[in-house]
Amino acid sequence: MRCWVNGQPSQQLALQDRGLAYGDGLFESIAVRRGRAPLLDWHLARLQRGCERLRLPCPTAELLAQLTAFIAEQQDGVVKLILTRGVGQRGYALPDPCQPTLILQGLPTPAYPAGHATDGVRLFACRTRLAEQPLLAGIKHLNRLEQVLARAEWQDSAFPEGLVCDTQGRVIEGVSSNLFLQRGGVLMTPDLQRCGVAGVMRAWLLEQAAVLRIPLQVRDISLADLQAADEVFVCNSLFGIWPVRELADSHWPVGGLTRKLQGLVSRLMDE
Amino acid sequence: MRCWVNGQPSQQLALQDRGLAYGDGLFESIAVRRGRAPLLDWHLARLQRGCERLRLPCPTAELLAQLTAFIAEQQDGVVKLILTRGVGQRGYALPDPCQPTLILQGLPTPAYPAGHATDGVRLFACRTRLAEQPLLAGIKHLNRLEQVLARAEWQDSAFPEGLVCDTQGRVIEGVSSNLFLQRGGVLMTPDLQRCGVAGVMRAWLLEQAAVLRIPLQVRDISLADLQAADEVFVCNSLFGIWPVRELADSHWPVGGLTRKLQGLVSRLMDE
Repeated sequence: MRCWVNGQPSQQLALQDRGLAYGDGLFESIAVRRGRAPLLDWHLARLQRGCERLRLPCPTAELLAQLTAFIAEQQDGVVKLILTRGVGQRGYALPDPCQPTLILQGLPTPAYPAGHATDGVRLFACRTRLAEQPLLAGIKHLNRLEQVLARAEWQDSAFPEGLVCDTQGRVIEGVSSNLFLQRGGVLMTPDLQRCGVAGVMRAWLLEQAAVLRIPLQVRDISLADLQAADEVFVCNSLFGIWPVRELADSHWPVGGLTRKLQGLVSRLMDE
Repeated sequence: MRCWVNGQPSQQLALQDRGLAYGDGLFESIAVRRGRAPLLDWHLARLQRGCERLRLPCPTAELLAQLTAFIAEQQDGVVKLILTRGVGQRGYALPDPCQPTLILQGLPTPAYPAGHATDGVRLFACRTRLAEQPLLAGIKHLNRLEQVLARAEWQDSAFPEGLVCDTQGRVIEGVSSNLFLQRGGVLMTPDLQRCGVAGVMRAWLLEQAAVLRIPLQVRDISLADLQAADEVFVCNSLFGIWPVRELADSHWPVGGLTRKLQGLVSRLMDE
């Protein structure tokens, strides 16, 4: 696998890096097509929000230069970026000065069955609940044990994705994706102020919906809201949009708005 | 620094290790005196609980053999153990088969001012709140951004430790330690079923208190309970016990029970 650590080819990380010790850092999984990353600006915006939240030095010109060069070389696939607080001594106190570690990894495009996008998917109903932690909500940090535990709940490939709720039972997201629903012509997606990862595809779709003047609500969503939806889909930057057809006893058709947004995503990624 | 990775001297970790990607693992910071780790059994018991919770292969004979040899070579200081789920592909699903990574690092004994143990300490009142996540509470996993954020709140060395509460305002622990209080002859420490790290020194002290028939309560503790305490202390496996003299507007004397337990800890560590 092609990997850079701070601009140099490397397959390894110093054991004293705080990314390992505390999950003290952020990551982005960036889809690359023909040497371009269509959602790069959205990834960088989220990375910057994460840096501000974690008090990490913000993405610098040097980071941008390395990332741009790495993406160009990648041509197609996924560029995984990890930004950590770098090497530190034992103990939680922030290292001073802080020398962040930038890791870039080039991966092949994931092979998702085409039927997931065309026919839709079944969601596994995860019992793992997401804790409410506003300080970490929305950003893509390296503390991902909740997702690991949720994804470990099922092995059956009939479920390409799982649904996770928060400790109050609110619907939050897929294990590796965000969730939208449409009801009565209104597009809705869970508010992620308390927990969850605010995906870049979610952000892009919210912008598109605004441009298209699709009525839009970012709000708390209950399981009853989800059951009453006219259409449901999950999205992320790698697979785009998958219609959701089934969760436990609930069933939904593949809706017209889902198809319309899938068309926009296809144009975005293939242009 | 002396480091082993899976039994071999190494300073580096594979970039694909899930310890880095997701904080998918556990750690222990083990005090070593003259080639012995007085609290080793308590560390191993917590490690095993963590392994069960994270569905990691339990500490094996091989892990014990490496750890024992490493501790003997260390003689004095701290042995930091990190156990991760090992190398994995992109995505949260558990690798199958799973080949955990065992990292051992030898560190010098931390130099704490002697006055902290004799005269007591002031606690910084952290605004960072701990989220309620029963699935991860009590174990010492690698997802420690809450502690990083809490510890980043102050730089003033007049505060050797900070107090953190949960999102409901209950008193939970120090950033790197557990908290006890005594009131009316009853020793109390916060219940850690919802959040917090159940320290090995806390576990050892709870056992000692039972042996000594000191009335004991593991329960929810409010700031008002803390303020009304007759004595307060924080503890961990590296510094032992520090009396707490001050937190915001509250003051406590160094109490007799604190001194008695300090004596027990000194005997444990020096024997």
